[in-house]
Amino acid sequence: MKTIPIIQIGVGGVGRALTQQLLAHGDALAARYGIRFEYVGLADSTGLRARRLGLSVSEITTALAEKAVGQPLSPAGAFGMGWRSFILPQRGIFIDVTAAGGHEQALAERVATGHRVVLANKKPLSADFSAFQALTKGGGTRYEATVGAGLPVISTLQSLLDSGDTLTRIEAAMSGTLGYLCTELEAGKLLSAAVREAHRLGYTEPDPRDDLSGADVARKALILARTCGLPWEPVQIQAEPWFPAALGDVSLDEFMARLEELDAPFAARVAEAQAAGGALRYVATISAEGASVGLRVLPGDHPLASLRGPDNLFSFTTARYAERPLVVRGPGAGYAVTAAGVLADLVATARELRA
Amino acid sequence: MKTIPIIQIGVGGVGRALTQQLLAHGDALAARYGIRFEYVGLADSTGLRARRLGLSVSEITTALAEKAVGQPLSPAGAFGMGWRSFILPQRGIFIDVTAAGGHEQALAERVATGHRVVLANKKPLSADFSAFQALTKGGGTRYEATVGAGLPVISTLQSLLDSGDTLTRIEAAMSGTLGYLCTELEAGKLLSAAVREAHRLGYTEPDPRDDLSGADVARKALILARTCGLPWEPVQIQAEPWFPAALGDVSLDEFMARLEELDAPFAARVAEAQAAGGALRYVATISAEGASVGLRVLPGDHPLASLRGPDNLFSFTTARYAERPLVVRGPGAGYAVTAAGVLADLVATARELRA
Repeated sequence: MKTIPIIQIGVGGVGRALTQQLLAHGDALAARYGIRFEYVGLADSTGLRARRLGLSVSEITTALAEKAVGQPLSPAGAFGMGWRSFILPQRGIFIDVTAAGGHEQALAERVATGHRVVLANKKPLSADFSAFQALTKGGGTRYEATVGAGLPVISTLQSLLDSGDTLTRIEAAMSGTLGYLCTELEAGKLLSAAVREAHRLGYTEPDPRDDLSGADVARKALILARTCGLPWEPVQIQAEPWFPAALGDVSLDEFMARLEELDAPFAARVAEAQAAGGALRYVATISAEGASVGLRVLPGDHPLASLRGPDNLFSFTTARYAERPLVVRGPGAGYAVTAAGVLADLVATARELRA
Repeated sequence: MKTIPIIQIGVGGVGRALTQQLLAHGDALAARYGIRFEYVGLADSTGLRARRLGLSVSEITTALAEKAVGQPLSPAGAFGMGWRSFILPQRGIFIDVTAAGGHEQALAERVATGHRVVLANKKPLSADFSAFQALTKGGGTRYEATVGAGLPVISTLQSLLDSGDTLTRIEAAMSGTLGYLCTELEAGKLLSAAVREAHRLGYTEPDPRDDLSGADVARKALILARTCGLPWEPVQIQAEPWFPAALGDVSLDEFMARLEELDAPFAARVAEAQAAGGALRYVATISAEGASVGLRVLPGDHPLASLRGPDNLFSFTTARYAERPLVVRGPGAGYAVTAAGVLADLVATARELRA
């Protein structure tokens, strides 16, 4: 039996789902692969609860329960040591399931010293290209859950590249929220009504502009492009927002109150798409020549036109998949499937550390 | 740099494509992962060309060129040592890209002694369940290319299971040949004409009954089921053949001459499907309760109904992907993509041996 020490940074929705999956499924993984994950630390932005020989199950579940009701891991005012200064007892895995910026350098230092990193956090991979390079050097970081949650997107792309295939084009719909809105628009709903309902149901971020700006899709597109070896900086992928610049600076309340301003232009675009027998989709297209992220009218027989609701779809056209693409499709968001993507990465990484 | 010794059993179409990909892409893999694959042996059914310190590129390319024009690796009558009796100089990988039966025990012995196995050959995984268990113990064997060629099918299923998800149902179309025939039938062609053309173009096996029996699909279904932990023996999956038993025993010439006997029943089934607004597909369905492999009339909005031509499609419904399945689709046959599936498995395995 090989014990792999892990430190989990982030104990929000995805983090709690991951911990629960690991506790529930740990024995099965031990039986199958001879691997046991040992939590030596749980961290959030306030501090770290750590034990070099491993946190007990009750320490872990207590921390989760406290976080679930909004308490920080470190009480206010404590000068707790953070994860950046914790020394792992042996080669282990740092798991970042936050949405925080600024972790990339500390994580890259862990990779450089032989540790591994698993990310659901997109930010460390979508900062400077040099940070991406440092993090992913020698395959030291896995990040399946950053794009498409638990869908096999990064691993599929990596396998294609590892076998010497070359990218022609990726076409993808990778925002469940924007996909949901497209389906509502096609069903005849006004954009204002669709956004308000999605907001009420919690399908959008607290400020829906965080979805409607397309910035999250652009970050995912950047991660896909960099995985293909394209040395792009963030400014090289610009997303088309769903709202005019003037609505970007107003308060959330004012934005929600002025949503009706978007109804007429969107109704016109949907009508145009339907008149042409096609579909309106928010699409990212990536090739060596560049990327585009925006609303597109697609012909009715395009694979992306068949998408309904919040499903994601990724279409890979390569030198070997030239005439007909390799396509991956399914739900691309949610705590449980995102945590599952992280856990599958953890298992793959642990199998490498086991030898 | 870590050198990984490999022995490749099988130097047919897939084997030659694999060798070419490895020679062309080896430097890139060395740069990316610090891994170098070293051919210590090339084997076919006649014998083994081996060198414990590694075959030279010219020895490898000579062997490939000779095999390509039909020469055996060992001249007739030679008492060459086979791969079964070759001792690897260190922990390495046995690659089986043959279609031969009877390899399972020798390969399982290699796994038991710490070596790894990568398979494009379905036979070792579709013999007795005990042989499957021995081969896959502790993750010692990878076999992505046995189902869907280079498509991410086994790895996707394995990641779902590794993260503690549980299978509800797999639905799959996984014969490019039978998918091609379904599309031709829907276009109004008679089955006899479609089979003769597919045979002439090399889309079928030399004896088309090897495709039309469904036996190859049943073998793939068995591999998927066993990957999910279902301890099934081969008799537990029966495929529905496209021809009556009486045509199973006649000569190939007689079978081809009597193909017209199948035209009327197939035309009737296609007409029935189209009258219902659906599609006729050759589908494997796998769940814990059992498997079925046969022709099905699917509703028009079923994901498998949208398939055209030789593409494969795999739909995974699980505890976490309950309402909407995870779907993988694309070309599931061909030397280059099958070899790419093997090579991706080799890289994943080598990353584990590197540590």
